[in-house]
Amino acid sequence: MTDVDVVVVGAGLAGLTAARRLRAAGRSVRVVEARDRVAGRTLGGTLTNGVPVELGGQWIGTTQTEVLALVAELGLTTFPTYDTGDAVTLYRGTRTRYGDETFGLSETGAVEVGRLRAELAALAETVSLSTPWTSQAAADLDRRTLDEWLRANTADAEALAFWNAVVPALFSAEPAELSLLHFLFYVKSAGTLDILVGVTGGAQELRVVGGTHQISERLAAELGDDVVTLGAPVFGIAQDADEVRVTCASGTITAERVIVAIPPALAGRLRYEPALPAARDGLTQQMPMGSVIKIQVAYPAPFWRTTGLSGFAFNLDGALSVTLDNSPPDGSCGVLVGFFEGAHARTAGSWSVDKRKAAAVAELTELFGPAAAEPSDYVERNWMAEEYTRGCYGGRLGAGVWTQYGAALSEPVGRIHWAGAETATVWNGYMDGAVRSGDRAATEVLTCLDS
Amino acid sequence: MTDVDVVVVGAGLAGLTAARRLRAAGRSVRVVEARDRVAGRTLGGTLTNGVPVELGGQWIGTTQTEVLALVAELGLTTFPTYDTGDAVTLYRGTRTRYGDETFGLSETGAVEVGRLRAELAALAETVSLSTPWTSQAAADLDRRTLDEWLRANTADAEALAFWNAVVPALFSAEPAELSLLHFLFYVKSAGTLDILVGVTGGAQELRVVGGTHQISERLAAELGDDVVTLGAPVFGIAQDADEVRVTCASGTITAERVIVAIPPALAGRLRYEPALPAARDGLTQQMPMGSVIKIQVAYPAPFWRTTGLSGFAFNLDGALSVTLDNSPPDGSCGVLVGFFEGAHARTAGSWSVDKRKAAAVAELTELFGPAAAEPSDYVERNWMAEEYTRGCYGGRLGAGVWTQYGAALSEPVGRIHWAGAETATVWNGYMDGAVRSGDRAATEVLTCLDS
Repeated sequence: MTDVDVVVVGAGLAGLTAARRLRAAGRSVRVVEARDRVAGRTLGGTLTNGVPVELGGQWIGTTQTEVLALVAELGLTTFPTYDTGDAVTLYRGTRTRYGDETFGLSETGAVEVGRLRAELAALAETVSLSTPWTSQAAADLDRRTLDEWLRANTADAEALAFWNAVVPALFSAEPAELSLLHFLFYVKSAGTLDILVGVTGGAQELRVVGGTHQISERLAAELGDDVVTLGAPVFGIAQDADEVRVTCASGTITAERVIVAIPPALAGRLRYEPALPAARDGLTQQMPMGSVIKIQVAYPAPFWRTTGLSGFAFNLDGALSVTLDNSPPDGSCGVLVGFFEGAHARTAGSWSVDKRKAAAVAELTELFGPAAAEPSDYVERNWMAEEYTRGCYGGRLGAGVWTQYGAALSEPVGRIHWAGAETATVWNGYMDGAVRSGDRAATEVLTCLDS
Repeated sequence: MTDVDVVVVGAGLAGLTAARRLRAAGRSVRVVEARDRVAGRTLGGTLTNGVPVELGGQWIGTTQTEVLALVAELGLTTFPTYDTGDAVTLYRGTRTRYGDETFGLSETGAVEVGRLRAELAALAETVSLSTPWTSQAAADLDRRTLDEWLRANTADAEALAFWNAVVPALFSAEPAELSLLHFLFYVKSAGTLDILVGVTGGAQELRVVGGTHQISERLAAELGDDVVTLGAPVFGIAQDADEVRVTCASGTITAERVIVAIPPALAGRLRYEPALPAARDGLTQQMPMGSVIKIQVAYPAPFWRTTGLSGFAFNLDGALSVTLDNSPPDGSCGVLVGFFEGAHARTAGSWSVDKRKAAAVAELTELFGPAAAEPSDYVERNWMAEEYTRGCYGGRLGAGVWTQYGAALSEPVGRIHWAGAETATVWNGYMDGAVRSGDRAATEVLTCLDS
């Protein structure tokens, strides 16, 4: 007799979704979470004026049907990201305001970006979402980095600058750090590049009133304190023919099955008995987390709106590749959100908060004019420094990894099942993918328990 | 008052060298080792006939002066790797016997390999060994994989086949898995590519009578059982203003300083309090260990010698890229050693021992004739499956990592110092580099303790 049917490691969206499914199926569950809070890579914060801001993952797209259904079910509401007016692009010192599909690039640049996007879209069509390593040209797509492909396929400096800003905005990593196959998989997993990058009609369309972390909080409240244990980092997982034993700060829990719902890079740091197979262990050695510091700069009002700007900006010259309007739904104050991502995050990570703030404010001033130079507040979150995340948005696969280790990403190891946004085939890396992965892992476990 | 001045984590060559230096300087030391043996990636074994064979790192080159000095000091002796006669290369089904510098390639192929080697050598000259990320063209060299460079610089299929066999032989990884900068650093760290690849005059010139693991065993014996604790995997390292606390299976040891002498991929799995800086943690997420299964096939006699073959072979068609004569010094039986490396190792790692043996024997038969089909013994070691190594020969850096995380490889974090072959600037990845890294870390610690 085990303590519970299933232990879930990690109280983020994936773990809590799995726990909920298992409980709904009549199974006993314990969720153990290292932090003293639930919600993983989503996190609520507040400005000094009390206005809530989101320090982690926040946007939901209308095609992210699983997380949207969960939001509705839990009684949360969404509102549209402010997306009215023109966007701004800064490139080689020139600021371009645009309201069309050009991304503010020159005609040549915009055409070239479109051509590359179409070629990448055609390549993405050839990729298998369930088993990317079996895709038609998998070996060839996987040995190349996205950076190599971009350099080999265009000599247009402006188009390259655009991709070198957009890719970190999506992956918190540089194009050289992803295999072409991983990039294509990720794009297809989300639908299209337009959906990934877009606000209205895209992955940034909706926000949750009060913040997305409430999804996890409500799931955890439903499960109750008896089920969800906080402040309990897991040290090790031992399994044998009879049971699995999960050892955490608060003791050892025995179960029939365990779902490990944390990113592969962190899952690799637990102690397993018996030791994990080489393929699974090797995967965890080479699926590093992205690098990002999310910054938010507040103003007494969303002043950019009054001049017809949406707050959306691409900065191809600076450290904050993408900026959006992140003001509260009532517009009672103005908030611009930006991200130090990839190489910029690694550099800015060694700076003081004051230096990062100054750099951010300077860039926003270039993009949105002198009013941006007088912020009323500044909040940031360095996700690389979070012990129990160690980077966002998620884990990525560099050259060669998908084809040689991909199968180990989700394949159960005895009584251990794997969940988390990194294991999703649809909306990989997103909240929606996390929910789907929790569902998938719960289904796996239920099948085992029922058999 | 702490228990000891210094704790050393890991009783491989680096850790034991450091411990010895510290003791010689009058400092108290404890070495804690996860395994029930010392010597890390070196390991002794025996054939069923009692003849010793080495299951891990074994060769020493004459320019590896630090490890050679240690061997001599410890009363061990070396003997030359058998290197008399012709080598064999197999390419597209054709077996070529050669005794010159052609590697058994066609004239065109050999010239092309030479041209690429010269270009790589010239590039390697531009790399800084102490701080590769400050090298002249570091960003450009680091964003490219070695695979990209090779494909961009030759269209010769034979030359590419050669490099695609030689690179895994050196790194246990594929050319796409290394940045060009890492490859160049590694080559320069060893001297030249000829030295890296060569037997006589190269890194494979000498063997230690009885095996290289004896170096560690003698170092450990010198230190004594009071100093070296086996079977004590370290779980965590906590530090504050007063001391550092190393927690392992046998309890907690307090010290002034700790030297972590295990590969970065494994070091990242310990728990640190306070948590490690993001740059150091990020490095440990992206310095995966190589993939290798070392196989040895024994025969009643070294039959290849009688037909004037040295036992050295390149197999550009098969899974065992490189084969060498690994017979005991007295030639009382014949042993051929080969390696499943990189992609081949990942594939072969999922096979049964019997299947690997059959594949190896089939390849050796193609290379050395029908006598190879009748082995008297077979031993192997899958280093990917070793819980406390998780791959050999060592950790590698893919595209972008050196320039963005290189500084974190050796930089101490408070009371924590880092050693291990991966941190060496000379003979990085080799036993010689491990010894040098132990010396360097001991010097760092002594400087801190004396100040």
